[in-house]
Amino acid sequence: MPAIAFGRFDDSFSWGSIKAYLAEFISTLLFVFAGVGSAIAYDKVTSDAALDPAGLVAIAICHAFALFVAVSVGANISGGHVNPAVTFGLALGGQITVLTGIFYWIAQLVGSIVACFLLKYVTGGLSIPIHSVAAGVGAIEGVVMEIVITFGLVYTVYATAADPKKGSLGTIAPIAIGFIVGANILAAGPFSGGSMNPARSFGPAVVSGDFHDNWIYWVGPLVGGGVAGLVYPNVYMNHQHAPLSSDY
Amino acid sequence: MPAIAFGRFDDSFSWGSIKAYLAEFISTLLFVFAGVGSAIAYDKVTSDAALDPAGLVAIAICHAFALFVAVSVGANISGGHVNPAVTFGLALGGQITVLTGIFYWIAQLVGSIVACFLLKYVTGGLSIPIHSVAAGVGAIEGVVMEIVITFGLVYTVYATAADPKKGSLGTIAPIAIGFIVGANILAAGPFSGGSMNPARSFGPAVVSGDFHDNWIYWVGPLVGGGVAGLVYPNVYMNHQHAPLSSDY
Amino acid sequence: MPAIAFGRFDDSFSWGSIKAYLAEFISTLLFVFAGVGSAIAYDKVTSDAALDPAGLVAIAICHAFALFVAVSVGANISGGHVNPAVTFGLALGGQITVLTGIFYWIAQLVGSIVACFLLKYVTGGLSIPIHSVAAGVGAIEGVVMEIVITFGLVYTVYATAADPKKGSLGTIAPIAIGFIVGANILAAGPFSGGSMNPARSFGPAVVSGDFHDNWIYWVGPLVGGGVAGLVYPNVYMNHQHAPLSSDY
Amino acid sequence: MPAIAFGRFDDSFSWGSIKAYLAEFISTLLFVFAGVGSAIAYDKVTSDAALDPAGLVAIAICHAFALFVAVSVGANISGGHVNPAVTFGLALGGQITVLTGIFYWIAQLVGSIVACFLLKYVTGGLSIPIHSVAAGVGAIEGVVMEIVITFGLVYTVYATAADPKKGSLGTIAPIAIGFIVGANILAAGPFSGGSMNPARSFGPAVVSGDFHDNWIYWVGPLVGGGVAGLVYPNVYMNHQHAPLSSDY
Repeated sequence: MPAIAFGRFDDSFSWGSIKAYLAEFISTLLFVFAGVGSAIAYDKVTSDAALDPAGLVAIAICHAFALFVAVSVGANISGGHVNPAVTFGLALGGQITVLTGIFYWIAQLVGSIVACFLLKYVTGGLSIPIHSVAAGVGAIEGVVMEIVITFGLVYTVYATAADPKKGSLGTIAPIAIGFIVGANILAAGPFSGGSMNPARSFGPAVVSGDFHDNWIYWVGPLVGGGVAGLVYPNVYMNHQHAPLSSDY
Repeated sequence: MPAIAFGRFDDSFSWGSIKAYLAEFISTLLFVFAGVGSAIAYDKVTSDAALDPAGLVAIAICHAFALFVAVSVGANISGGHVNPAVTFGLALGGQITVLTGIFYWIAQLVGSIVACFLLKYVTGGLSIPIHSVAAGVGAIEGVVMEIVITFGLVYTVYATAADPKKGSLGTIAPIAIGFIVGANILAAGPFSGGSMNPARSFGPAVVSGDFHDNWIYWVGPLVGGGVAGLVYPNVYMNHQHAPLSSDY
Repeated sequence: MPAIAFGRFDDSFSWGSIKAYLAEFISTLLFVFAGVGSAIAYDKVTSDAALDPAGLVAIAICHAFALFVAVSVGANISGGHVNPAVTFGLALGGQITVLTGIFYWIAQLVGSIVACFLLKYVTGGLSIPIHSVAAGVGAIEGVVMEIVITFGLVYTVYATAADPKKGSLGTIAPIAIGFIVGANILAAGPFSGGSMNPARSFGPAVVSGDFHDNWIYWVGPLVGGGVAGLVYPNVYMNHQHAPLSSDY
Repeated sequence: MPAIAFGRFDDSFSWGSIKAYLAEFISTLLFVFAGVGSAIAYDKVTSDAALDPAGLVAIAICHAFALFVAVSVGANISGGHVNPAVTFGLALGGQITVLTGIFYWIAQLVGSIVACFLLKYVTGGLSIPIHSVAAGVGAIEGVVMEIVITFGLVYTVYATAADPKKGSLGTIAPIAIGFIVGANILAAGPFSGGSMNPARSFGPAVVSGDFHDNWIYWVGPLVGGGVAGLVYPNVYMNHQHAPLSSDY
């Protein structure tokens, strides 16, 4: 069952909370600046060619590395969500209050929008590519793709960072969180685009003014992240059962 | 000598064991979804061209990153095997009972099959590529290739994760396990395909209905993983000898 | 507010300080040798073709890996700055005295120049590529690009390495520092070049004798690193406020 | 000054030492199998085309990942040298006796030769590519290139693994050691080949019967590794001086 807590207003406006919102804003800005930037860079060096395998590697590695760092630099301040779907999944598991989560969302979305406006300026006005499903892929197929890959991302966040039993996994948690996104982009990039993150998709939509397919990158990630936020804590973080006997 | 234990039925049906089977199912699903997905993605962006070096990098990095994460997220629950050859090698070294290992195999195989059915759907019905040996490579050569590279994988599992003397290596064990697979795919990909994992090869065979060469990806990985499961524990985990004097 | 300390001469000439300057010299030499070397290698294998996505991946990964290692090998001796913008950002936050910082700069710049002379020799006299803004990108746009990405780099240095509350993040700090540079090069490479480091840009300018645009790679990185050096410590390292209540 | 110790015969024939030789043999076999395998794989998928940037990435990442793992799996048994130049550099710094080092060399060289024979078989008899300097690069230039990059490798081994003051760097030492090799191959690959390792170069020479230029990959790595083995311990591991005052 979900373990949602609404939260208290004074907690959400404490100095600590405000620092956390700023950390989410900066982390998301840095992540989206690099990630969307790598897609623009591909368009620049290929004169807007269709995606090829080397470009897919460039974009996937950029997202993997940048998200790893964005999560790292926020980890001790805000938890390093950098993603409304992660915040949503953690709220469903009782890891963050709804009220604080709403401010996280705002910080993430604003960070992404600012990053895209900066990219628009520093690239000399190039167009900002948005997420949309590829030719031959239907909207529902895109939603299901985003559900599966975002489930994987938020499941990873729980297993490596939020689970109190994580042990030494916690040390490499930001790397795991970044790299599952890199791996999933290598698989999903040519189909749904491989967003897993409404903020990552929303900023480019705002700056380009093109919201076509944008709903897919809200529904898919929130459903996938939400399912992970219901499954992981209820199955694996319930301490009332006997400890595992498997010992490898 | 092998240190096989058959196990007790009540252990294999405890709540802890069932959580471990679920963890293996999810980890294998996430790994195969990304890994096979990256191969389909290559086919999509190149319109089914023959593999080129950039595509090999894309597929190898995807498997490396995804396996690292799949091992991480399962590590504290099931041990993060994600691979029947790893489970087999660990059973030969007495790290898991045969009975529990059988349920691990089932969870891994089902996870792979479900991942491939999902891929079939989300890609709009594209064909699921299977493992098979390349032109100019014989079946026995493919088997030997898979033996060597799976030996390396399971040896890595023992040295970094299962060996009680692993020390701080344990922190980076999932990265090492993922990256040896990435390295081996960069070498073996154009020859045997670089599976090292019967579940990774079985799911695509089931969903595509093409079992040609599939036996190679059972025999090779199980022999290679089995040899590692006999060699490592007997040579390096025997505590009756004097400690090492080498100190670097 | 800044927390600058000028420092004492005897501290800056202690044996420990001299070892630190040597460490900065060696780390920067190794980083620039690999990084600039990868750009020359691209020119060699493509006969000076325009940058393509595979080349961008090669250069970005080389810088990411080499900086990770350069920071690692210096971490316990000099702190592993490897970059005048990092040293500047840390001086503004009171992490290093101005006087010692000046010697760090000298060591870094000399290390970069020596690396480029070595590259000139070992490549049989090939030309050493310099940083400059791409066609279609203005100088101010290049400066802003370098400000944003260097802010990200120095913010990462603070969050993962300099912040006393870093905890287990400190273990992976050098990886994060290297990988944010790799990610940022994948985004900024085809626009400003993605330097983030005056020493990285200065050595090639000296050895090629071409200082055109070089000022951009002083102004941008120092402003970006300086802003991070003012923001991070004042917002996140001020211990007079209540601890964070967010707990993920 | 060097701190060489010859060693005692009974130490070099203890059960612990024999396990260490076996570990070096297996680690070097796994590393060379993947590394040389990736070069053969490039030749296979491109029908022996000249090296391009995507191929350079494939080969560099394969060596980086495989060496990281080879060092990891040997770390607690033999120290994970996997390289005669590393063993030589550590012997000069007194980290391993000369006598034990000689057996390490034999194990490493035999491991490399066996790996190349296996590759010859599993690839259906393809030719095994050797290291040699590229057109336009002289032999002395190749030697200097190998000196510089191997200095970087062995300096990394000292700073992250052998230095007793390494602290938490020790946890990521195998990654740093693997990744400096990856970075250096991205720079040196199209010039000297980027060996840094006499065993890596010797196995292919034996199996192909082509020893042309092979001396370069003994002289360069041993000089570079030797210099690092003299510099690092004497400058940074001498505990008679005051501790560092730099504190970042």
